[in-house]
Amino acid sequence: MATAREDIVAAARGDQPMDLVVRGAHLVNVFTAEIYPADIGIKDDRFAAVVRYEDGRPAYTLNGFREVDAAGRFAMAGFVDSHVHIESMMVPPDEFAKAVVRNGTTAAAIDPHEIANVLGKDGVRYMVEASQGLPVRILVTVPSCVPPVPGLETSGAEFHAKDVDELLQLPGVVGIAEIMDYPGVINHHARIAGIVSVGLDRLVVNEGHAPQVSGRWLQAYLAAGVTSDHESRQAAEILEKLRAGMLIHIRDSSFGHYVGEAAAAWKQVPHSVNFTMCTDDIEPDDVIKRGHMNRVVRLAIEAGIPAPLAIRYATLNGALRYRKLDLGAVGPGYLADLLLVDDLESMRVRDVYVEGRQVVADGELIVDVRSSVAPPLHNTMRLPELVEDDFTIHAPFAEGDIELTTIEFAPRNRTVQGRLRVPVKGGRVAELPPDYVFISVTGRHGQGQKPFVGVLKGLGLRSGAHGTTVAHDSHNLVIAGRNAADMLLVARTLAKCGGGFCLANDGQVLATLALPIAGLMTPEPVEQVAPRVEVYNARSIELGLLPGQRSPILSLAGIALPVSPDVKITNLGLVHVNSQQFVPLFNAA
Amino acid sequence: MATAREDIVAAARGDQPMDLVVRGAHLVNVFTAEIYPADIGIKDDRFAAVVRYEDGRPAYTLNGFREVDAAGRFAMAGFVDSHVHIESMMVPPDEFAKAVVRNGTTAAAIDPHEIANVLGKDGVRYMVEASQGLPVRILVTVPSCVPPVPGLETSGAEFHAKDVDELLQLPGVVGIAEIMDYPGVINHHARIAGIVSVGLDRLVVNEGHAPQVSGRWLQAYLAAGVTSDHESRQAAEILEKLRAGMLIHIRDSSFGHYVGEAAAAWKQVPHSVNFTMCTDDIEPDDVIKRGHMNRVVRLAIEAGIPAPLAIRYATLNGALRYRKLDLGAVGPGYLADLLLVDDLESMRVRDVYVEGRQVVADGELIVDVRSSVAPPLHNTMRLPELVEDDFTIHAPFAEGDIELTTIEFAPRNRTVQGRLRVPVKGGRVAELPPDYVFISVTGRHGQGQKPFVGVLKGLGLRSGAHGTTVAHDSHNLVIAGRNAADMLLVARTLAKCGGGFCLANDGQVLATLALPIAGLMTPEPVEQVAPRVEVYNARSIELGLLPGQRSPILSLAGIALPVSPDVKITNLGLVHVNSQQFVPLFNAA
Repeated sequence: MATAREDIVAAARGDQPMDLVVRGAHLVNVFTAEIYPADIGIKDDRFAAVVRYEDGRPAYTLNGFREVDAAGRFAMAGFVDSHVHIESMMVPPDEFAKAVVRNGTTAAAIDPHEIANVLGKDGVRYMVEASQGLPVRILVTVPSCVPPVPGLETSGAEFHAKDVDELLQLPGVVGIAEIMDYPGVINHHARIAGIVSVGLDRLVVNEGHAPQVSGRWLQAYLAAGVTSDHESRQAAEILEKLRAGMLIHIRDSSFGHYVGEAAAAWKQVPHSVNFTMCTDDIEPDDVIKRGHMNRVVRLAIEAGIPAPLAIRYATLNGALRYRKLDLGAVGPGYLADLLLVDDLESMRVRDVYVEGRQVVADGELIVDVRSSVAPPLHNTMRLPELVEDDFTIHAPFAEGDIELTTIEFAPRNRTVQGRLRVPVKGGRVAELPPDYVFISVTGRHGQGQKPFVGVLKGLGLRSGAHGTTVAHDSHNLVIAGRNAADMLLVARTLAKCGGGFCLANDGQVLATLALPIAGLMTPEPVEQVAPRVEVYNARSIELGLLPGQRSPILSLAGIALPVSPDVKITNLGLVHVNSQQFVPLFNAA
Repeated sequence: MATAREDIVAAARGDQPMDLVVRGAHLVNVFTAEIYPADIGIKDDRFAAVVRYEDGRPAYTLNGFREVDAAGRFAMAGFVDSHVHIESMMVPPDEFAKAVVRNGTTAAAIDPHEIANVLGKDGVRYMVEASQGLPVRILVTVPSCVPPVPGLETSGAEFHAKDVDELLQLPGVVGIAEIMDYPGVINHHARIAGIVSVGLDRLVVNEGHAPQVSGRWLQAYLAAGVTSDHESRQAAEILEKLRAGMLIHIRDSSFGHYVGEAAAAWKQVPHSVNFTMCTDDIEPDDVIKRGHMNRVVRLAIEAGIPAPLAIRYATLNGALRYRKLDLGAVGPGYLADLLLVDDLESMRVRDVYVEGRQVVADGELIVDVRSSVAPPLHNTMRLPELVEDDFTIHAPFAEGDIELTTIEFAPRNRTVQGRLRVPVKGGRVAELPPDYVFISVTGRHGQGQKPFVGVLKGLGLRSGAHGTTVAHDSHNLVIAGRNAADMLLVARTLAKCGGGFCLANDGQVLATLALPIAGLMTPEPVEQVAPRVEVYNARSIELGLLPGQRSPILSLAGIALPVSPDVKITNLGLVHVNSQQFVPLFNAA
C-alpha cells in the first residue's frame, strides 16, 4: 500500500493529481523574502509542489482533483503564535482555536501557567489533552514558575524541577515556558536553576521573560541558558537583547503593544535572525475586534517591516523556534497550513487550510471543533472565612497618622512605589483620598490566610469594588474597593460561582462574569463571552474605572505578578520586584 | 559544589572573574549582522558576557584571570563546515582536525561514506570513535548511499534502513548524510525511501545531493523529505532551490568552486535564510595552500556577500542546520569557540579557542591532538586474479570496426557521453587514438569479478597508466591507461600497499601514494602527505595528465560515481546517471 509520503512525492513528480491546486495567488515566500505569483499543489497533509510563474504563467501545470482560483489573493503559511496563554481569552482550547484560526493562527506555542497555578499538573494535563485534534496545532511549553516567585506568594501548586521534567514527557510538549523568575535565574537560586537545567539537559527550548533586564543581568540570564523574551518594551531594549543573541517575540497583546518599538529596532538591524511574533494575552472582545496573529503582522508591516519578513517572523521563525522543521512555510514537504489573505494592508484572512483540509471559508469556520475531553468544572475557590473587617488595613496603633507604601499605576504597564499619609481611627485605616482604593489579595487555593490589604493609586474607581480571580499568575483573589462591605460582597459572589469577575457598589452586584474552569475560563464561545466583557467594562467605567492599557475588567490582572516591575502585591505582602524583597506597608514616621 | 553553569552565570553577573577576557576586537555579531568593538568574557567552556563599546569604551568592565588585547583583530565564532568528507584529505580525523583548526574550522558535519563503502558499519564506528575529543567538534551524518546506487555498482558494504537506523544511535550522530540517489528518492525506490523515512521518523536532518535537479524533480525530492544540497553549480539553479525551501551549502571544495555563483544568487535574494558553507572535499595540498573554511568565507566576501552574513552562514547557520543551538555565535551561553582573525580580506586566522581553551596561537597549533583509537590498517584490497588481457576491451567479433560509447570530460566536473569508431583486431580493441585512454573499474571488495573496461576522452595521459582506490564512492580500483601492461602493474602495486595512488609507464612505477587505511587514508600529518601529492602530480603532468578542475592525482576520483551527471563507469558497466540505466559499450553499427 502506498504511504502518504509516497503519494505526495508522486504528486510532486506529476504522476498523481494533487488533492488541491491553489492557482495564481501572490505567494509570500518566506525562505527568500519574495512575493510572486505561483501555483500551490497540496497532497494529503502536505505541500507537494509550488510552481512559480515566469512571464505570467506557471513554469509547468499542476493538476488537482480540486482547484481553487486565488488570483489577486496573497498565499502564505498559517501563522505560528510563538507565545500565548490560552486562558487569557477566558475560554478552553477548543473555543480558543475557533476564535484564532479565523484570523490565520494555525499553530500556537502555549504556556498553560494560569491553570497550572490553580490546578497544578492536572491543569497542564487537561490543557494538553484538550488541545489534541484542534485546527490550531498547540505546542505546549511547561510552566516554569508555579508560582512565579515562591516565598513571595503562594498559589494552588508549586512546580519543582522534577515536576517540570515529568510534564516535558507529555505529548506535544516542546519546551519550558517563560522563566519569569529572572532574578532567581540570574542569582542561580536552586529551584529555578534546577528547572533551567532540566531544559538544557532535555535539549528543549528555555523560554524567557526579562522585562528591562539589561547589562550584566541580561548577559547572566542568557548565560544561564534562557534564550528569549517577549517583554521588551523599547527599541533600545530590543536592540540590546538581539545583539546579545536573545530571540525577541514581537508582541501585540491586549495590553502590551510593542510592535512599533520592535520595528524601530528592526530598522537598525534588518538582517537580524531572532524575531518571532506572539500575542501573549488576548482578551475575548479584543480577538473579535482586532484579530489575532494577523493583526500583529499587519501592525509590523504598517510599522515598516517588509511584508515577507514580517510574515517570516510570524510563520517560519516561530516554527523553527520550537524545532518544527516542516512547518511555517509554503514549500514542498512542509505541512500544508495555508492562508489566503485579501491583501497585505488589511491582512483579512479569507480561507484557511490546516494540513491540507479547509477549515475556514470566506472568513467563516466550516468544520466542527470540539475537544475530546470535558473541562474541569469543580469549584476551585478555597477561601478562608471572610468578614468585612478583613478588607480593612489594620494599623499598628489605634489613633494618629500613618505613612503607607502604595502602588501606583505608571506608563507601559508598570506599577511603581508611592507613599501616602492617612489617618488611623480605631486601629484601622478606614478612609482613603479620592484617587486611592484598597487593594486586597486573598489566597484562594486553601492557604487559609486572611487577605493582605494595601493601597493602590490610579485605578479610578470612585465607589464600590471590583474583584477577580484572574490575577497573574497565582490567580489568588484580588479585590480593589473603596469600602470593605462591597469588597466582601465581591469575594462572596466569586466564591459561589467558582471565580471570575465581579463588580459591586452600595451592596449591589452590578456585573459578574463567572469563569467556572479554575476561575479562569468558561466553556462558551468567545462570541458569547465578549459581549459580557463589554457590559462589565461599561459598568466599570460608570464607577470610574480608567480604561488604561488593559481593558477595565482586567485592570487588576497584573497587580499581583511579582515578576513584572516595579512593585506588586501578593497574598503575602508588597513586593519589590527587582530585589525580590517584601516592602513594609507601614513606613517609619 | 558550584556547577560550571553556576560559575558562568556568576562571571556574567560580575561576581566572579572570567577565565579569559578578550578585549577590544571587532566583533562579528552574526545575530544582528553587525561588526563593532567589544570585550568578550569566557568562563569555563562558554562565553559568559559580551560587552559592546559605546563611544570608544566598553559599557562596563569585565575582569578576567587572563586577558588578551585583541584591538585591531576581528573576533568571530569558530567555523562550522556544514558538509565534509574527512577521507578526501587522505588522513584520519585527528590529522584532519590539526590541519583545519588552524584555518578556523572548529566544527564539521562529516559524512564518512568513503570508508563506509570499504569497511561498512565498522568504518563508520571507527570514524565516530576517532573523532572524540578533537579540537574540531565532529558532527557525524550517517552515510545513506552505500553504495551510491545498488544494482549499478557494488562496494564493500550495503546499507539498508535498519543499518542507518542503527548507526544513528552512535554518539555525536546528527543526521543522515547526502542522499545521493536522487532518482531513487524521486521515484520512491524502496531502499532509499526507507532510509529517508528513518530520518523523518527519528527527526534528524536528511541531507541532500541534487546536482541539476530542477522543476518537478526538485519539488519531488524536497517533498520526499530531503532538504539540502551542496551540488548546485549555477546561480539560477541555486535560486530555484532556495525558493523551493532547500538549504544551500555554499561550497568551495578542491574541485568545485561555486561560491561566485552562490553570491550571484544571494544578490537577488539577500534576505534568504537557507545558506551554510562547506568544503565537501579538500585535498591535502589544497588545505595547506588555500586554507579551509576561512577560504570559503573569504571567497564569499570577495564575491560580494557582506562579511557578517558570510560569517553567519559559516558559523551560526551551520550549527542551526544540525540543531546545535549553543554553537556558532559569540554570545552569552554559547560554547566558546572563538577565532581572532587578522582582517576580513585575508581571513588569516591568528588565534583559535575551542570551548574556551586556546588551541592555536599565532597560526600554530599549541595542543597535542591524537585520536584515542588506532586506525584500521589491515589490507582491504580484495582483488580478483588479474592478467594483462583483463585490461583490454574484448569485442563481440574478431576483426573489423566497432563503435564504442565513450566517456568524455566536460566543463563543471561533468562527464558526458561520446562515440568512437575503432578497429578490432584478434577480438580486441588494442589501440586508441591519442586523446583516449582505456578506463577500467575493478571491484576490490572481494566481488570476484574481472575489470569492466571502457574508453575515456580528455584525461590527457599520453602513455602509461594511472590508477587509484580513491574512486567515489564505492572506492573500487579505477585504472586508466594507454596500455594493459602498465595498467596491470598499477593494479598489482596498489594491491600490495593496501590501496592509494599509483602511476606507471613503460613497466616502471613512477610514483605511488599508499593509503593503508581502507585504501583511502594514511596515518600521517597532512604536511607529509601534501608534498607527496605534489610529486605525484608533477610526474602525472609529465605523462600528459591534464590539470583540470581536480588535481591530477584525483582526476579519476569522480569517474565511477553514478550519481553525478551525465555518464559514469562502475565495476558493472557504463551508467547513464539521470535514467539510472546501463549504457551498452558497443553500439549497433
